[in-house]
Amino acid sequence: MGDATSTRQLTAWMAGFAASLDRRDGAAAVAMFDDDSYWRDLLPFTWNIKTLEGKGSIAAMLDATLHEAKPGNWLIEGDASVSDGVTEGWFTFETEAARGKGHIRLKGGKCWTLLTTMTDLKGFEEKTGVTRDKGVEHGVIKERRTWLERKTLAEAELGYGAQPYCVVVGGGQGGIGLGARLKRLGVPTIIVEKNDRPGDSWRKRYKSLCLHDPVWYDHMPYLPFPDHWPVFSPKDKIADWLEMYTKVMELNYWHSTECRSASYDEESKEWEVVVERGGETLTLRPKQLVLATGMSGVPNVVEFPGAATFKGMQHHSSKHTSGEAYAGKKCVVIGSNNSAHDICADLWEHGADVTMIQRSSTHIARSETLMELALSGLYSEAAVKSGITTDTADLIFASVPYKIMPALHVPVYQQMAERDADLYARLEKAGFLLDFGEDGSGLFMKYLRRGSGYYIDVGASELIADGRVKLKSGVTVQRIKEHSVVLSDGSELPADLIVYATGYGSMNGWAARLISQDVAEKVGKCWGLGSGTAKDPGPWEGELRNMWKPTRQPGLWFHGGNLHQSRHYSQFLSLQIKARMEAIPTPVYGMGKVHHVN
Amino acid sequence: MGDATSTRQLTAWMAGFAASLDRRDGAAAVAMFDDDSYWRDLLPFTWNIKTLEGKGSIAAMLDATLHEAKPGNWLIEGDASVSDGVTEGWFTFETEAARGKGHIRLKGGKCWTLLTTMTDLKGFEEKTGVTRDKGVEHGVIKERRTWLERKTLAEAELGYGAQPYCVVVGGGQGGIGLGARLKRLGVPTIIVEKNDRPGDSWRKRYKSLCLHDPVWYDHMPYLPFPDHWPVFSPKDKIADWLEMYTKVMELNYWHSTECRSASYDEESKEWEVVVERGGETLTLRPKQLVLATGMSGVPNVVEFPGAATFKGMQHHSSKHTSGEAYAGKKCVVIGSNNSAHDICADLWEHGADVTMIQRSSTHIARSETLMELALSGLYSEAAVKSGITTDTADLIFASVPYKIMPALHVPVYQQMAERDADLYARLEKAGFLLDFGEDGSGLFMKYLRRGSGYYIDVGASELIADGRVKLKSGVTVQRIKEHSVVLSDGSELPADLIVYATGYGSMNGWAARLISQDVAEKVGKCWGLGSGTAKDPGPWEGELRNMWKPTRQPGLWFHGGNLHQSRHYSQFLSLQIKARMEAIPTPVYGMGKVHHVN
Repeated sequence: MGDATSTRQLTAWMAGFAASLDRRDGAAAVAMFDDDSYWRDLLPFTWNIKTLEGKGSIAAMLDATLHEAKPGNWLIEGDASVSDGVTEGWFTFETEAARGKGHIRLKGGKCWTLLTTMTDLKGFEEKTGVTRDKGVEHGVIKERRTWLERKTLAEAELGYGAQPYCVVVGGGQGGIGLGARLKRLGVPTIIVEKNDRPGDSWRKRYKSLCLHDPVWYDHMPYLPFPDHWPVFSPKDKIADWLEMYTKVMELNYWHSTECRSASYDEESKEWEVVVERGGETLTLRPKQLVLATGMSGVPNVVEFPGAATFKGMQHHSSKHTSGEAYAGKKCVVIGSNNSAHDICADLWEHGADVTMIQRSSTHIARSETLMELALSGLYSEAAVKSGITTDTADLIFASVPYKIMPALHVPVYQQMAERDADLYARLEKAGFLLDFGEDGSGLFMKYLRRGSGYYIDVGASELIADGRVKLKSGVTVQRIKEHSVVLSDGSELPADLIVYATGYGSMNGWAARLISQDVAEKVGKCWGLGSGTAKDPGPWEGELRNMWKPTRQPGLWFHGGNLHQSRHYSQFLSLQIKARMEAIPTPVYGMGKVHHVN
Repeated sequence: MGDATSTRQLTAWMAGFAASLDRRDGAAAVAMFDDDSYWRDLLPFTWNIKTLEGKGSIAAMLDATLHEAKPGNWLIEGDASVSDGVTEGWFTFETEAARGKGHIRLKGGKCWTLLTTMTDLKGFEEKTGVTRDKGVEHGVIKERRTWLERKTLAEAELGYGAQPYCVVVGGGQGGIGLGARLKRLGVPTIIVEKNDRPGDSWRKRYKSLCLHDPVWYDHMPYLPFPDHWPVFSPKDKIADWLEMYTKVMELNYWHSTECRSASYDEESKEWEVVVERGGETLTLRPKQLVLATGMSGVPNVVEFPGAATFKGMQHHSSKHTSGEAYAGKKCVVIGSNNSAHDICADLWEHGADVTMIQRSSTHIARSETLMELALSGLYSEAAVKSGITTDTADLIFASVPYKIMPALHVPVYQQMAERDADLYARLEKAGFLLDFGEDGSGLFMKYLRRGSGYYIDVGASELIADGRVKLKSGVTVQRIKEHSVVLSDGSELPADLIVYATGYGSMNGWAARLISQDVAEKVGKCWGLGSGTAKDPGPWEGELRNMWKPTRQPGLWFHGGNLHQSRHYSQFLSLQIKARMEAIPTPVYGMGKVHHVN
């Protein structure tokens, strides 16, 4: 609860902190932090996405950045609140280049967690509210050009007569949301998308697909869904929304366009991006190149021995559209994560005989339980009613350092294990290999660490539990024959269809494909925190590798993630690009070392 | 300012009022009104849009409605505020059938103005927030139909296998906004539009057209414009918005479809609506028919003597697209209202030699002055900042009875006359005939009374004032010759182009065209308050005739007006239609007499 005492306490802390920073006295500022402390900076100090862990790291960061950042004008916003001995609150501040908003938690009078985020570049604010365009030029103007004429001309010119400052490869939700932010910041941008229409990357997926995250989590920037929008958007509905969004946000969206290759000229500091559009090969020369080709990266198409001899149908899960054609057919789905479960259910619903091959353990979280236990505090109708806007929710979410996140999540998933004990017991009885993550921290940590290893249960687990979908678990695929799949336990499954739900590689696979293997290795693996758990090798990074922040390749950026992440982090990616366009100094602090090339 | 004393006063008044109504004691309730009092009811008591003026009218209304309406549960919402001796505040209430929201003003402890509006039909509330659809059916379902499959099937079926409950003729902003409300209420509706795409009624207008009302006034229901949307939307931009809105709201929008005729079967209480769609003639059989063909109605094409002999180009203002073709040409624009001014400016900007013919006086309001003096309290960035949502603004706007509106507007336009005295002086010097309405009440009253007689100046007045656009005023057109226009003062204007900016007829002209002259005369004139001023013959009605409320023709409704009116009144029109669909009793009180057939 908000109260006067904690607000006074926070105000006093902030006054001391501000005074130290005004004197550029980093040591005095650091002395106000707890030994167990974290400062998460989304740009203002580091021009990076960076969590400083402990006083030593914070001191080093301040030492390196304070004199250029020139922070000031720290102001507590609203009342502080206190619970479990932790006082927390909001504040605003400025740096030389920008304005920011932050969140702080105090423990025993010292700072435990600090979040500093950039909201605006001074002098380059988005036009909104009172600063919005007038739309019409009043008065009389000879040879007046209308909005439509100007728009049509600019669209025809960009990429031909005039070069975009930025090219975004991939026009899914990520590219579109980022495109909208860049548009509002006045960064000339082209979004390159191979499909015919915005939203097609959803439309082309298996037809039963719905968003697994609820509507409150999924808003796009600037234009929230209306309040009747369904909790879980069907894929074609979200596709239509994205198409409409692209249109009304006036994005330069080059549909039916394929990016063939990209190379960086170190001298001119310019990309040469070769695209095919309307049967023509064009070269774009942007300064910044964003790969927004899906955080899941390149489909991981495993070449099982003998696959070439298979006489039935076989495809990667990303190519699966519907089970309609498989009534009465024997289908083998290799994999046991989200897509594998959805596809098994789809095939079963269409009357197929389905077997899932589970090669390693999987975390199962029932959708309803997940929403209630893990998301409802920030993203739910109740949160909206209690005044938590999407923006506030995103900032609270961002205020928890990744280092301490697992410890906060473990109890949530313990509760989940209890609540859904019956389902878990039945799944285990059916032979399903369950886990809750190596440290019991559950779904979201798995998502951050490896982007895989779980299924948000919307029904398929019941099919597994009661054997309607057959299960072979703890086996690997030994080889594929003309009409069957042979497993490591010696069993042989007859098959008319094999679906490889074998996941995706790292996003830098796209860099290898479009730019070069050299550049892909130079930037290294994308995603993952360096937790040292499966598929997330250490050392510890504390932030997602290469996502939304400078990489080892100048002018190359990676953008992706779920709708929540795309929405929130596109803010910081767009500000970084805008700052470079306006030649605002952007000294990057704490660029990560590259330990893994994929 | 909100204060405890006035809140107590209002609470006490409401307690007394509620107690009287709970006893069904109309006389006691009426005794709490001032002699000078107004009760504006948007459905809950009257199932009509009705202002009761004075205690006698209020008593009669209560007498007729109280026992069926069964009002109750009156609750003051928020704090009251007081200024100039008037205490005002908000409240909620219920009737047997519905929930409502209201606004009240007390003067000397008695009620001066009361507004009661219907927000929901009990048991038929719109699905929103917590009651929104889930979007996906969790669990596994054999033969599952996806959202897209269900939508595609329903769209193919409606109008062929299944009949819509409602047909809306006209898919402009009005039809679309109403369609969205009916959709959310679950009323099967088809919108019939002759153009190819939603928004074409804007796209096809003269190319320099922008909305004359600012963005805060123009939001559509449910999905407000994002906060960078320009103040004055260019016509093609608003057109794109309407197209996308139609799509994401999932309206059954039959584009490229013409309504040929409609007739009502008194026995089956069903319309027979003949439309042409895709080269096919179809008959739709809805219970309710809405004409949303533009509040301006049928273009008023005046047949001046000799017009048929004219050798140049001539068209009604509604057909004017651009001045591009007229550089160096002699153009005569007959008329002096909004369209006439916009078209004169457009022609002049394209290098034409332009003469405006002003036949009678016109009210000129500079756009900036109008926004600042007349709109900014409710519809502006400042209003948004001070917490006035669009919904609140609409209700405050609706809370002022039309009877007292002119008196409130006169001082605003006096201020306008002072502020822009220089422009007005120069216009008069150029011969322009100015007015501020017969009683000095200015633009909005002219709009309500006659829907014409003014120009919102966005630049053309300067052209008139300094003679760049020539003016002939106080004359009428005597005849048209092969190459000229002859005026009543004997002068003759050579002309290559004549634009007839001669306005529009009443909306019931559409009823005459589509249904029959009989029905058009039975419902009578649309729009106008009965003020007894020019083009708004008495007797006094106190509300817009036939708009958004029951007409003398069962099952026939008129919808239209500017974006603000379409947004707000579509709420009440949609609730009336839904109530009839659900067979909720809707006894209409105070149906207006028909005094004028057009």
